[in-house]
This record gives sequence, structure tokens and C-alpha cells, in this order.
Amino acid sequence: MSYTNSELFVSPFCRRTAARTPNSFTMERLLRKCIIRNQLVRECLAECLGLYILIGSGAAAQVITSNGNHGNYLTIQLGSALGALFGILVAHGVSGAHLNVVWSMSLSILGRHPWRKVPLYALSHLLGAFLGAATVYLQYYDAIQVFSGGQLLVAGPNATAAIFCSYPAEHLSFWGGLVDQVVATALLLICCLAVVDRRQGRLPNGLAPVLVGALILAIGLSMGSNCGFPLNPARDLGPRLFTFIAGWGEEVFTAGGGWWWIPTVAPFVGGLLGTVIYELLIEVHHLTTPHEEQSPGPELEEVVVDSGNNR
Amino acid sequence: MSYTNSELFVSPFCRRTAARTPNSFTMERLLRKCIIRNQLVRECLAECLGLYILIGSGAAAQVITSNGNHGNYLTIQLGSALGALFGILVAHGVSGAHLNVVWSMSLSILGRHPWRKVPLYALSHLLGAFLGAATVYLQYYDAIQVFSGGQLLVAGPNATAAIFCSYPAEHLSFWGGLVDQVVATALLLICCLAVVDRRQGRLPNGLAPVLVGALILAIGLSMGSNCGFPLNPARDLGPRLFTFIAGWGEEVFTAGGGWWWIPTVAPFVGGLLGTVIYELLIEVHHLTTPHEEQSPGPELEEVVVDSGNNR
Amino acid sequence: MSYTNSELFVSPFCRRTAARTPNSFTMERLLRKCIIRNQLVRECLAECLGLYILIGSGAAAQVITSNGNHGNYLTIQLGSALGALFGILVAHGVSGAHLNVVWSMSLSILGRHPWRKVPLYALSHLLGAFLGAATVYLQYYDAIQVFSGGQLLVAGPNATAAIFCSYPAEHLSFWGGLVDQVVATALLLICCLAVVDRRQGRLPNGLAPVLVGALILAIGLSMGSNCGFPLNPARDLGPRLFTFIAGWGEEVFTAGGGWWWIPTVAPFVGGLLGTVIYELLIEVHHLTTPHEEQSPGPELEEVVVDSGNNR
Amino acid sequence: MSYTNSELFVSPFCRRTAARTPNSFTMERLLRKCIIRNQLVRECLAECLGLYILIGSGAAAQVITSNGNHGNYLTIQLGSALGALFGILVAHGVSGAHLNVVWSMSLSILGRHPWRKVPLYALSHLLGAFLGAATVYLQYYDAIQVFSGGQLLVAGPNATAAIFCSYPAEHLSFWGGLVDQVVATALLLICCLAVVDRRQGRLPNGLAPVLVGALILAIGLSMGSNCGFPLNPARDLGPRLFTFIAGWGEEVFTAGGGWWWIPTVAPFVGGLLGTVIYELLIEVHHLTTPHEEQSPGPELEEVVVDSGNNR
Repeated sequence: MSYTNSELFVSPFCRRTAARTPNSFTMERLLRKCIIRNQLVRECLAECLGLYILIGSGAAAQVITSNGNHGNYLTIQLGSALGALFGILVAHGVSGAHLNVVWSMSLSILGRHPWRKVPLYALSHLLGAFLGAATVYLQYYDAIQVFSGGQLLVAGPNATAAIFCSYPAEHLSFWGGLVDQVVATALLLICCLAVVDRRQGRLPNGLAPVLVGALILAIGLSMGSNCGFPLNPARDLGPRLFTFIAGWGEEVFTAGGGWWWIPTVAPFVGGLLGTVIYELLIEVHHLTTPHEEQSPGPELEEVVVDSGNNR
Repeated sequence: MSYTNSELFVSPFCRRTAARTPNSFTMERLLRKCIIRNQLVRECLAECLGLYILIGSGAAAQVITSNGNHGNYLTIQLGSALGALFGILVAHGVSGAHLNVVWSMSLSILGRHPWRKVPLYALSHLLGAFLGAATVYLQYYDAIQVFSGGQLLVAGPNATAAIFCSYPAEHLSFWGGLVDQVVATALLLICCLAVVDRRQGRLPNGLAPVLVGALILAIGLSMGSNCGFPLNPARDLGPRLFTFIAGWGEEVFTAGGGWWWIPTVAPFVGGLLGTVIYELLIEVHHLTTPHEEQSPGPELEEVVVDSGNNR
Repeated sequence: MSYTNSELFVSPFCRRTAARTPNSFTMERLLRKCIIRNQLVRECLAECLGLYILIGSGAAAQVITSNGNHGNYLTIQLGSALGALFGILVAHGVSGAHLNVVWSMSLSILGRHPWRKVPLYALSHLLGAFLGAATVYLQYYDAIQVFSGGQLLVAGPNATAAIFCSYPAEHLSFWGGLVDQVVATALLLICCLAVVDRRQGRLPNGLAPVLVGALILAIGLSMGSNCGFPLNPARDLGPRLFTFIAGWGEEVFTAGGGWWWIPTVAPFVGGLLGTVIYELLIEVHHLTTPHEEQSPGPELEEVVVDSGNNR
Repeated sequence: MSYTNSELFVSPFCRRTAARTPNSFTMERLLRKCIIRNQLVRECLAECLGLYILIGSGAAAQVITSNGNHGNYLTIQLGSALGALFGILVAHGVSGAHLNVVWSMSLSILGRHPWRKVPLYALSHLLGAFLGAATVYLQYYDAIQVFSGGQLLVAGPNATAAIFCSYPAEHLSFWGGLVDQVVATALLLICCLAVVDRRQGRLPNGLAPVLVGALILAIGLSMGSNCGFPLNPARDLGPRLFTFIAGWGEEVFTAGGGWWWIPTVAPFVGGLLGTVIYELLIEVHHLTTPHEEQSPGPELEEVVVDSGNNR
């Protein structure tokens, strides 16, 4: 049976071809007027949307405002993991879905990403996280008002600030918090580098984002008790800025003995540590040919030209 | 070893060939008399079955009637997610498994689906959801009777209407409900468009349905507290019509201040918003060649001819 | 770098070649004396081992004897799902991992499996399930003795028979139980047929077992409250026979008004219903060529020759 | 669009090529000075890191010190499973990620791994597990101090030793513990052999580690109640040695009637049993050609040369 029949269309999961219907040309022409050709701007938009999705899929608002009736600790971690998964899926084909400036820094250190893009990615993440927090607040406005009795507090039984960003547990000391963030981010980087290390085996499309989501779940279940495992400066600072503006006030920065800067700075240390560990223990030793050792120049990996991509 | 031996057969997971056994010809001849050639009718049957499976796999009946002994909030969301996964699996090879008229609308706006099919898909979804709800009621008849004491109520500690469709939480205002549905459906569409966007990477067969199921789980865990995240007009209205007929009465339409029309209408708004967001931030900017810009005609994507499919 | 060096070995996840070390020849020669060439016997061994793994991975023993401290309803369902997954993985390359005589029956009805093998598979399943139950009892002997106070009961707060097989909930009537088993098995068959339907898309190796495991989870979460969703005559009868012999006595057959025969017979009805539904709504309508309609003879699908398999 | 532009870079999930940026040459030159060419040393480093990740991702510390507020039995098992998954991912491309000397033993028995490497792998595992436990202690130092009141105990309501290694449940007898470890390790080996058995079907890259993680979850949910399913001598002994040194004292070896040696020795028995079961029931019977039977020499499987790997 021929596939040129205009009756046929490409459904999302069908493998049959599509002939666009005439009325779509109007929508397509409208959208085409909005095409942005600058690759860097596209990447920033993708990174921004990725963080927006990641924060918007957070389950803490639901669990806290429902007093644990609509979720528990596990569902909060599952929500974080799935948010990371879909944040990656919306961006990975455009920018690689860094979603974390520590990851950008790691790749830059290894020469796989230009340094000049790192601050731009960081700003995109900050904006996306800020807007994501604003959306969560909008969506849960009624629930937050009822739960908090109208008072937006950082601490206490009706506190709601923890919906948006991290705060240290009562038992956590300064050095404990620093070590926690460094160790957790180091583990995050070690495992992410392993996931993208093609010499560990080329993963099928779509599996890497799933594994990274699973990694976020693993860290949340094993290292989330001390302070909620932020591990991502923008992911923590963006929503914190939002809560500062939206009514929780300056206590978001003073709480926990001025906790806020630790999840903003310590992940960089952990990220560097994790990168060095993985490189020294695993990646730098991948078998090399004499040729590779003699000419340490730019390495062009296999070019994949995908239909519709990169023409 | 040759594969023509009639002893051999194709087991579901085996890769060995099959020679059909003689007695199968009778069953095959009987079934062949029922072949429907009209593609649109086939698609409607598939969409109907998909919604039927989606509703039938819902875990709310079990959790509510067992007073939480056989499940909890997480298992209800897992049940929804898995129901979506298998609803897609039974239909995706035939119709693309839209399972949601908002998704059909989005694809039509983008010119990937003919508008004339949208109302027919919607009716198929409505019928499938109605029959799915009837099956759940049949299967849990005893449990519902015992739990409710024989009184089919919409509200109260022994209410059972929420097994079938959505009702707003007490804290939820009118605008809160509207915003909740718009935001949640927008996120659903953004992520679905990313999953099927081949320029984000071609997923192996079977992974896209799994990701969509994971997306349903993510939304349930993070946006389910306000009203149960219907996000799908037919999925909510079909079972609601069933409960209206089956004995819960007109309160299913009056409850929550006439809540019923919000999950029927608001998802369209959210779907349009999500489509525009994804297109403007990601998809419309995928690199284009000068050739593609000059000739915005029908685009024929790669034809995949699978044995037994589309001959 | 050459791969003939005997230093190299094939690690399970490595892609490097292996030269077997000399001392292995003794083990290999010993094992080779045990090779069974009869294909049917091999398949029965595989089916037996598959059910053994499925039952052995059941989490009910742990949850019941620990009074819910080491698990809950969700973990029991997860355990069932994972047991099904690994039961399939140990057998699918040999026999297709039917693991359920209802599935064998469905394939035979569709002409994809010889009827003469069905009773042999059923006996293998029965034996595997019986031995699996015996292993669970052995492993949890101490825990069962302590929990039950030495009395092996079918009902009551210290009952332990439900570890092994299904019993109806108090609210369940005779017809309710029958309908429950028919509906659940029908859904099981519809979804299994969709998973193995190549015209829905060819799944990568290993994904089909994962999807079937997910299906078991879905059914457990949504249809497990009435009687524990046995759906599999051998899976229910084998362990029931074990408990009859091991000390729970004849009450295992008299409980629930003689419940035992319903999960032994009703799944066949549900299996037939599910098969007919999927065929009439989906599979029989897959596009056919005039050629296929004219010559309804044996259909040889693509031959896959894998190294070491089927030579 | 050409891919030689030095502007382009390889993002982790993008398929576009990368030209390394000049400043990376410094980092690369520094790292290249650390290249270790000895394959065995590399494998030991990888195995060590794998166990380190596996232990470091354990969720027991979080659940115990938070009194169940930040997790429960299920999250502990999920943490173990995910720890196994990522432990495999960091090592599998280098050494095959044995992570368990019982697995190394099994492969050696089958002639797929040189015996001389087994003790070296075991020592690497022991070291990795010891360091992993030390890291968990460091990260949860504050939480452990607060929970235990400063007293590091093996038993009692404020005991913390179980964070690190296994202890028998009160109901467990000597023989019960022995049988438990033998049965659980046998099931572990049967299923692992099935996962890596290419004649069951070649799994896509990345799926095997996921399945092994799922297997760990299955065992934890179904066989974890008796003693926490160690199944891995180094995984249990390494952290136990750490607790002995770090302050819990010699009670870690005397508790449970000198329990410590059972999870160190019994898994070998279970591993041998599982290997023999899988070989005799499944693997040895895979169809062979007359040629294969006559020449039982070294078998060279398909050589896969991956860019950057093994040149």
C-alpha cells in the first residue's frame, strides 16, 4: 500500500509517513516567523525550559500542603527524579540538557564545552528555576494559603518555604552541610560522567535521561536527609529568590545560620572532586593507540547526521 | 538446523520462526471474516480500546474500597501511569494512541493530524472511558457495596464517586482549579511533544510509551492534590456519565460548584498553551537548510515498511 | 590491539572477546555430558525454572511474617512483578517463557503454539510453582514458625496460607470472584498480545519482559483487592498443593466456600475473552495485501540466526 | 551545516561532534601523565570504585537516623538497587563490573574469567566497600551522633551498626541464616547468568545493569527480612571492618552468635548452587552444531571494535 496518499498522517507513535494537511501551513508560517538562528540563544532557551520543567514537576508542594495525604518522602524523590528526566528530554537535543552549571563546569574543565557559555547557561538555569517556582506557587496558591493560614513562614509546623528550596536539618552542623553537599555532588558527577562515557558502552537514545533521573532518585533516597540534596546552585537559588520576593522575606537567606550560600558554592567543589575521581580512576585509562598518544589534537568523534537535524 | 520444520513455532519472546499449525486455520478463517478495511474505523476501535484499558487499570477503586489497606496515594498514581502505558501499547501501532482529544487537537494545530478525525477520536475516547468505568464498577461491585453501605455518594467518608472521575479538593477555588488544569495540561503537552520530537533523538520502539507513562506518574505526584489531574476531557466525562447513570445521580455534575466542565474545557486551553510554548522555545528553531525554508510543502519522513504492516 | 591474546576474557558487560582458560575445559566437559537434545524437554525445564523463580521472588512471606515492618502492599506487588520479569528472563530464549497455561492456550488458539505441548507446559508450571513454594517455606521457616506460633492456619490474624496462594476477601461473593478473575485475565491477555504484536512495533530485546512485569504490577495495584489476582492456574494450584501437604491441611481447599477452583478455571474464560477482544478490535485488521488474503498458508517470519543459537 | 566549526562541542546527550577547546589541552596533558596501562590495575580500580558507589548509595543511614521520616523499608531496597545499578555503570566498560567475588567465582568456574584475578578483585571490593562505609559515616556523622546519643551500638533502639552491614533478625536460627544466604545467592546467580546469557537474546547497551539493579530490588523485597540479604562477602565484611575500627567495637563480630562469617562464606555455596542449576537446566542445552561438539577449544565471540575502545 502506497504512502503518498494524503489521507495518511504521522501519529506520534506510528511509523507511517505524513503529508501535512493544508490548514497547517498557516500555523507553520506563523511559527516560522519566530525562528531564531543563533545557536547560543536556542541553547539558553532550552536550558531555561529544562529547569522550568524540573522545578515545576517537584512534588514537595503537594506533599507538604496535603499534610502527607497526597504523597510522602518517596513521592517527593520520585517527583524530583521524574522532573529531572523530563527537564532533560525537553532540552537534550538542543543543548545537551546540562540543567546544572556544575555539570557545565565539569565539561568545560574536560574541554568538552566552551567556558564562555557557562555563565550564560547559569543565568538561563536561574531564570528557568525562578519561573518554575513561580508556577508552582501559582498552581498551589490555594493550598499554600490554607495550609499556612496565610502566613508564609520558613520554619515551624506550617512552614512552606521548604517547598521551594533547601534548608538544613536541625542536626546538621556547618561542616556537616558542607561535606554533605561536596560528597553528594561528587557522586552525581561520577555517575553522570559514567552515563555519558561512550567507552562504557553506547546507550540507546532515551536511556541516558532515564538513568540520570534514576541517579537523582538514588541520591534523594540516600543523601536527602541532611538538607534535601540541592546539588545545583541555580535550582536552589532561583526558587529561593522567588520566595524572598513573593512574601517569605529575608529569612530565606538567614535561616540555618545563613545556609543559602552552601548549596550555591559547595556543589562546585564536589563537582570538581567527582570529575577528578572519575577521570583518574576510569576515563583517562581507556585504552589508547600509540597514534592517539602522539597527536593530542582535536578529536572528531563520529558524525551522526539525523534526518531533519543539523542541516 | 533448518527452520522449515513444522515442529517449530514462534513463541512470544523467541526469535525462532513459526509455521502455523493446521487447526489454526479454522480460527484464522473465522477471524478473517471480521476484517475491517476502513482505516478510520480501525483507528477509532484502537482509541476506544486504549481508553478502556487506561480506565480499567485505575487503582482508585481498590485503594478507596479497601480503606487504604491495598494501596495508597502512590499506588493510585502508579496505576494511572501504567494504565496510560498499556493504553498506548494496545493502540499505538494502529492510530498513534492519542488517548486524549487535547493531544489530537495539538497535532491538528501543528498540521500532523486531520481535523476531521478529532471529533471521531473524541467520541471513541468517551465510549472507551465509559465502558472502562462500567467494567471497574462490575469488578468492584461487591467491594463498593460493602464500603458504601449500599449508598452511592459523591461526598463524605463513604463516598465512592471519586473512584471514577475528578472532584476538587476543599481548598480549591474556581480560579485555582482552572489554573491547575491549564498548567498541568500545558506541562503534559510540552513533555509529550518532546518525547515524540525526533530531533531530540529517535527513541527505540517501546520507550516512548514508557516515558509517557512516567510523565503521567510525574504529574500525578506533583499536581494531583488539587483535583486529581484529569487533563483529559473524555477520561473525566465518560466515567462521570457512567456514575450519573449507574446510581450516583446528578450530584456528579453539581458537586464542587459545578466542577465538571472545568476538566472538560480547561485542558484545551492548557494544551494550546503547552503546544505554543514548546514550539516557540524548542521545536520551531531546529536547524533548517535553505532548501527547507524555501519549499514549505508536504514533508515526507522516512518510510518504514515493517513485515506484515502496511502492504 | 589484537583480541587473540588468551589474557583477554569476556566479562558479562564487557564487549571484549574471550578465550576460555584451560581449567574450564574440565567443567565444560562435565556439563557437556548432561546436554539434553530433546527440544520439548528443554522447554519444559525452562518453563519449570521460570515459575520457580516467579514464586521464589514473591514478597508476601516477608511482609506477612514481619507484620508489615519489611514491606507493604506495594512491595508485595513489586515483588510479583519482578518475579514475573525474571521468570521470563530465565526462560524466554528457550521456550518463549509462557509461565501461564492460559497464555499457552491463547497462542494455541491463534495457531502459534502446538496444542500437544499445552498440558506438558502446564505440568512444568505446576512443578515449578510447587518447588518454588517449598523453597519459600524453607527460607522463611523460622519466620513463619515465630509469626504463626507454630500453627499453620488459613484464616485469622496469624494466618500464613495467604503467603502461598489466593483467598477471597470477605466482601467477595461467588459471582464477584468469577467476574474478577475473568476481567483481570482478559486484561492480562489483551496487553500481552499487544506487547508481542510486532505490528505495534518491534521492541528491543529485553523490553518485552520488562513490560510484562509492569503489567503484573498494574494488575496487582488495580485488581488485587478482591482476591490477590492469581490469573494463573498453576501459580495458584501448585503452592496450594504444597500448603496442603506441608501442614495447612484441607482447609486450603475448603476456605472461601471452596474458592480454589475459581482461580484454576476462570482464567481460561478470561483468557479466551481477552484473546477474542484483542483480535477483533486490533490484530485481525492489520493491513493485508491481496496476496496474503489469497494464500492463508504457513507464514514464515524473518529468520534470525544468532551465534550459538539454533544451528 | 558543517561540523568542523570549532564552535561546536559535544554535549553529553547531543550527537554533534566536538572539537576540544584549546584550554582543555592543559587538563588533558595533566591527566595523561596519570595513565595506567596495566589492564589488571585498571580493572581493580574500576571494581573498587563500583563497590564504593554501591555502598555510598545505600539508603539505610538516612532511614535509620531520621526515624523513618525520610524513607522506609522500600526506599532502603530502592537505594540498594540503584546503588548496584550505578556501581555497575561506572565499572562495566572496564572490568565487567563484577562487584561480587561470588560472581567472579562463578565466571571462573565456567571458564570465562581467570582464577588468578579473583582474589585481586575480592581485595578491590573489600577496599571499595570499606571506603564507601567511611564516606557514609562522614556524611551522616551529625545525624548518627544525634540519633545514637553519641553511643555507637550494635543492638537496641538507637543502634546504628545495621546502617553498614547485616545482622540476623531475632527469629533467625543458625541453619535458617545459612539456608537464607544460600537460597538468595543462588537466585541472584541464576538470574544474573540469564541476564548475560546472549542466547536468551542480546540486550541493548545499558539494559543489563538496569536488570541487575531490578534483581537486587526483587531480592531485597522478597528475601530481605531474615538478615538484610548481604549476598556479597566484601559488601558485608568491608563495612563491618570499618565499624569495628570506627567505634562500634568487637560486638560487630560477636553479635548474632558470631553471625559475621555466614554472609562471608555462605554466598559462595549459594553461588555455586545457582551456577549449576542454571547451567544444567538452561545454558548447557543451548543448541549446538556437530562442529561445536567436536572442537571444544577456545571460543572467539564477535569482536566489537568501538571507537576509542581497545585499539
